[in-house]
Parts: sequence; structure tokens; C-alpha cells
Amino acid sequence: MKQIEGGITAVSGVRAAGVHAGIKAADAKDIALIVTDTPAAGAGVFTKNSVTAAPVILCREHLKDGRAQAVIVNSGNANACTGEVGMANARRMAAATAEQLGIDADLVCVSSTGVIGQQLPMDTVESGIQIAANALSTEGGGDAAAAIMTTDTHPKSVAVEIEIDGASVRIGGIAKGSGMGAPNMATMLSYLTTDARINPQTLQTALNRVVDDTYNLLTIDTDCSTNDTVILLATGRAPNVDIVAAAGANYEAFCEGLQFVCTELVKMLARDGEGATKRVEVRVIRAKSRGDAEKAARAVAESPLVKTAIFGNDANWGRIMMAIGKSEAEFDPYQVNVYLADYQLVKDGMDAGYAEKRATALFEQDSVLITIDLCAGDAEITMWTCDYSYDYIRINADYRT
Amino acid sequence: MKQIEGGITAVSGVRAAGVHAGIKAADAKDIALIVTDTPAAGAGVFTKNSVTAAPVILCREHLKDGRAQAVIVNSGNANACTGEVGMANARRMAAATAEQLGIDADLVCVSSTGVIGQQLPMDTVESGIQIAANALSTEGGGDAAAAIMTTDTHPKSVAVEIEIDGASVRIGGIAKGSGMGAPNMATMLSYLTTDARINPQTLQTALNRVVDDTYNLLTIDTDCSTNDTVILLATGRAPNVDIVAAAGANYEAFCEGLQFVCTELVKMLARDGEGATKRVEVRVIRAKSRGDAEKAARAVAESPLVKTAIFGNDANWGRIMMAIGKSEAEFDPYQVNVYLADYQLVKDGMDAGYAEKRATALFEQDSVLITIDLCAGDAEITMWTCDYSYDYIRINADYRT
Repeated sequence: MKQIEGGITAVSGVRAAGVHAGIKAADAKDIALIVTDTPAAGAGVFTKNSVTAAPVILCREHLKDGRAQAVIVNSGNANACTGEVGMANARRMAAATAEQLGIDADLVCVSSTGVIGQQLPMDTVESGIQIAANALSTEGGGDAAAAIMTTDTHPKSVAVEIEIDGASVRIGGIAKGSGMGAPNMATMLSYLTTDARINPQTLQTALNRVVDDTYNLLTIDTDCSTNDTVILLATGRAPNVDIVAAAGANYEAFCEGLQFVCTELVKMLARDGEGATKRVEVRVIRAKSRGDAEKAARAVAESPLVKTAIFGNDANWGRIMMAIGKSEAEFDPYQVNVYLADYQLVKDGMDAGYAEKRATALFEQDSVLITIDLCAGDAEITMWTCDYSYDYIRINADYRT
Repeated sequence: MKQIEGGITAVSGVRAAGVHAGIKAADAKDIALIVTDTPAAGAGVFTKNSVTAAPVILCREHLKDGRAQAVIVNSGNANACTGEVGMANARRMAAATAEQLGIDADLVCVSSTGVIGQQLPMDTVESGIQIAANALSTEGGGDAAAAIMTTDTHPKSVAVEIEIDGASVRIGGIAKGSGMGAPNMATMLSYLTTDARINPQTLQTALNRVVDDTYNLLTIDTDCSTNDTVILLATGRAPNVDIVAAAGANYEAFCEGLQFVCTELVKMLARDGEGATKRVEVRVIRAKSRGDAEKAARAVAESPLVKTAIFGNDANWGRIMMAIGKSEAEFDPYQVNVYLADYQLVKDGMDAGYAEKRATALFEQDSVLITIDLCAGDAEITMWTCDYSYDYIRINADYRT
């Protein structure tokens, strides 16, 4: 496996664009369009929030047959809590895109991200769709990554080339995250492309598995958006033997590549969480079960007290003990060990006699790894999050103004 | 029912003190002592955190027989994650208190609050216990309320006089909270006294019921402390007919008084949450069940995005919709109504056409009431919380320094 340039358009048969239509103020890009040359196998995973945005409802409908050829995305407005008008607007976005591309509307997936509860400015959106269609290019992946951003500080894009039974296959992805991240799907939006030959059902199974191990283990601030969406399109242009079932070496090779792309995107999302000054990885080892490992890791990764201590470079390990204690995971408090990188802070549930200065230095990194050894079994998990800073408050206290 | 002065020492047969021993720096009070003239009926509710502080373990042991005569509390050090030494120190605190008072050690309850993971400075604690015993007075309730504080900005104390079948009965309480508040028992420490004649079992039943409707519905930051404690002592000095069962008018009258005292303390705790600029009440009405009402209210009250919007006086109601949507409560999103005080923001799940200016003015109050009408049944609940401000980050980023 090797990392390559180009993001989603590194993949054969994929064009993309990201343009400024005028939904956002200033010159920021706010319409992204991703198109495959011919209908692709399509898979999706969406928010579990019962207050579901109109475009998510439409995507579920349009992906039912496992086929898709385009994804149209606007940022600046979430088209959520917008009732029948919002649903009609999501359909209009699909129809306008289909018209520009000369394809069926049910091959178009739609996403929106931004403020909840306002109707889309449809004239602006529709002219933006036209501009985007005219700008489509096999080098447009970076522009698309930029156009889906809201409070993100930079675009996020990854691509790899893998080998499946000797054949070269590419997988690319973009994502946007920032706030409203977690507990189910921490990124609001991520689009993945591959030229692998793989049938829709197997594609969906692979996506479900990888999302569980990546996006669903990212938590920025515990809040789960109404619009969370991951869509994966497979163009089938690569020379690999068809992957037709969720088993075997070829399927595993594909999943491994997909897992790498999604993990890299998740790490970028964590580092760019709203107001984040550092990325935090919480690794729980020797838990009684995977469920227990996740409970303990989530409790730590979501604790405001732990996250503010990390922001302050303060090795306040008592808060980590508090968090795992409230998690309902089973363990003996006086057998727990906690490490910062490979430096031990807690031994058998108590102060390991660490030096504050050395711990502080380890916190003053761009990326912090906390390992919690529960000494209760052999399950483990890694979750990704970020610290809580003044800027999280600043960004969210007046997001709309 | 009428509110009276004096807090826990308004109650006949109770003396208290709050003194500076030197556990905390500066001159701050750090040892509180509450004593009843003769052994009282005692009830307690404690943290559900499995990483349980030593004094909590001791309290559970000492309250097993439903009798207690004293509570000794130190602030500045939590005596949690301190192993066998910590347990021995909790016992030494009980023994030293018992010796000063000339009573049995198993009549003494012990609490500690402050930093986790450091051993108590026992010489300082023991001399503090002696100073506190010498300072005991029937007017010491206020000093005790001050001595249990950590990052609280002011002491919290309430007392009422109620009538039980014509007899005057008093109930008093103090509490400290601030950070690490929720999900099970949001206050870290609260001590309640009454002169009611009531047997220990009925006292415990009443306390459980009232804690469920008050302290357990307070959430500052979702973090549940290792030390949370509520203890209620009944001196039996009032002239009421013995309350011997958890039923009937006399029991209900007692619960009503206790509920009032605890609700007032919870409101004070919410307003004084770490960094709080205002108190927030989240009321969910017409939920399908009490469980659903609590899920929805908790999701809103614990959402960092909702809490930062409230800090910013921003009527970003989409975040409220997002929060109830992720709560797993059952409702139809397009039937939901949301009110700020009695001003409607959301009608049938969408913008009610409110004026931003008027909404902002309603947020700029010391206390904010958000009512969410789920239109799904007849259950309701009120939860208490506060906003998330820059000061929450500041206080917690360097709590130990």
C-alpha cells in the first residue's frame, strides 16, 4: 500500500469540482460535486439522529439500489428542520444536478451542512450546481474537499494505491468535521471513491465495518449531527478480479486500504476539531470486552474535565480514573495502569511517581496518546478526539453571527 | 412551609463548624464538622462511580445501621485513588472525630473533596478536627457550608420550617458542587439535617426519592465524581408523631419539605457551576414516558453546543433539535415545539418565526428556562444545568496549579 496524491480524483473514472455559489458569505467555496463517468456501485452510512436532515432521507432512498453516479453537496446551510419545503429542495438539488449531467436524478446523492432550520436559497444553489458541473475535472478533488468545509480550518483529503491479487486499485477520500462530532459518526460528511471492482452489497458491508472502526470511534464534543453522511462510490475501472462477497483475501485487502484512508481522515478530523490545539488518541487495552473497551475509552475521550486538563498540559490523571469509573466498564480500580505515550502516570490505580515536568512535556505535543490498561481481559480499542480550548467556546458561542 | 435562616443548624439538636486547618493554601476554610447532640437516624446516597473514594466506602459502612452522630468533611483533597493508605486515613478521620466528641467512631461519616490521587496530610487534618470540634456551635451552619467548597464561588445553604400534622418540623441543608457534576448526583457533597421524628428506613426511602428528583437531575458537565455524597441526619427533636412508613400524609409532608430544600440547593449548584454565567432549566413536557423525558432533557442539558450557544445568547434552536434527536427519545420531529421562557422559537419542528432580538434578550437573564414540548405523551421532567463559558475552560485547564 502506498499513499498517493489527488484525493477522491486520484481514482480512475472520477471527476470533481468545488466552487463558490454564494450560500456562504465571502468568497468561500460552498458547492462540491463528485461524479463518476458511468453509474458506480454506491454505499452509504448515515446519522442515527432521529431529527434527520432532508438530504439524508433522500440519500437513503437513492442508494437503495446500490447505484449512484454523482454527489452534490452544499455547505453553509444544513437543510435540516425544514419540513416539506426542505425535502422538495433536496429533490430539486438532485434534479438540477441530474439535468446538468444528463443522468437520472435517482443516481444523485445530496448532502448539506451548516446552520439548521433555515431554507436553502435555491436560486443560488441551482446556479452553483451549474458552475460546479462546468468545473468538473479529474484534478478537482482538492476543490471538493475545500467546498464541504464549515468551521474546519483546512481541507482533508487522502488517497492510496493498494494491490488486490496483483492488480492495482486506488481508494480516495475527503472529509469535513469540526463540531457536532459524535457519538455515531463523528465526521459530518465524508466521500470516498475507489476504482475497485466490487458489488454494491459487498461494498456496503465493507463500509459498515470500516466506519465502525474509524468514524464511529471519533468524538469531538459528544454531539451527533442531523446530517452525518459517509458515501463510498466504486467505479469498477481497476483491473482486479470482481469482489463479490465479504470474505477472502481480496475483500480483506480492500478493507485494509479503506481502513487506512478512513483512519487518516479521522486523525485529521480529530486534530481539526473545533478549537483543538492537539489531537488525542485514547487507547484502552486489556478490557474485558470490546464493549467495555469502548465504554471506557469514550468516557475518557468525552470528559470535559479530561479534555480541559489536556488543553492545560496538566497530567491530572485522577480525572482519567474518574472517567473510566463512571463508564460502567468492569475492572478493578487498583489494577489500572495509565500511560502518557510510553511514560507511566498510574500504577495499580495510584500515582506511579511520575515527574510532572516530563508529563507536561509529553502533553505539549501536537498529538497526545493516552493508554489505559484495565487489566481485565484482552479486548482493546483506540478512539480519537481533541482537547477543549477557549476557542471551542468562542467558535460555538456565536456560530451564527 | 416557610423559609428560615440558619441552614443545617436551624434544626434543633444540630451544631456545626467550619475552620481553616491548612489543607488548602491561603486562609480558606477546609474542615467542616456537623454533629447531633445524640445519635440521629442517618441516611445516605453516594456516587455510582466504580472508582470510589475511600471516605465514601467508609460512609456506606458506617450508615448500614441507619445511625450517625457526626459528619467530618475536608476540602482540598479527595482521598480518592489512594489505596490502603487512603482507607486507613479515612478511618483515622472518623476515629479522631469520635475521640474529640467522646462518641463511637462508627457514628461518624467522613467526606473528602478536592484533587484526586494524593494522600491526605493527616497531621494537618487531625489538628483541623480538633479546632473544628472546639468551634462547634448552633450557629455554625454557614461556616460548615463555606468549609466544604472547592471551586464554588459562594456557600450554599437553605432551611425551611414545615408542619407535619400540626407539629413544626425543620429541615436544613448545605451543598457544594461546581465541576464534575453529573450524571448520577451532580453535587459532590450535600448534608441535610432535620429534627423530624422518622425512622432510619423511612428516612432513606424519602432521601432516595428526593435525590432522584433533584440532585440526579442536575448536570454541570456530565462528569460523575468519585466522591459524590448526600447525607441526611434526623435528630428526632421535633414534636411530630413518628413517621414510621413511606406512605401517608405525614410522610408526604416531610418529602415535600425535603424536596424544597434539595431543589433550592440544586438551583444554587447549577447557577454556580464552573464558569457559569447563568442557570439553565430544561423542561421537557408531553414525553412518552418519564424515561424519554429524562433522555431528551439530559441530551439538551449536556450538549456542549447548546450550552455554548446559551453562553453566547444565541437562539440556535437547531442545536436543541439535534440534541433531542440524538437522545433516543421517541417523538415526531415535526410535532415538536420549543419555548424560551414563554416565547415560542420552534413550532412543529421548524422556525416559529420568532424575533432574534427578543430571543437574545430572554437569554441575557440570570436564569434561562427552555421548554421542549415533544407532543408524544404526558410525562414531564425538569433538569438543571448552566452554560459553558470561557471560564469553564480556564478553571479546568489548570485546576491543580
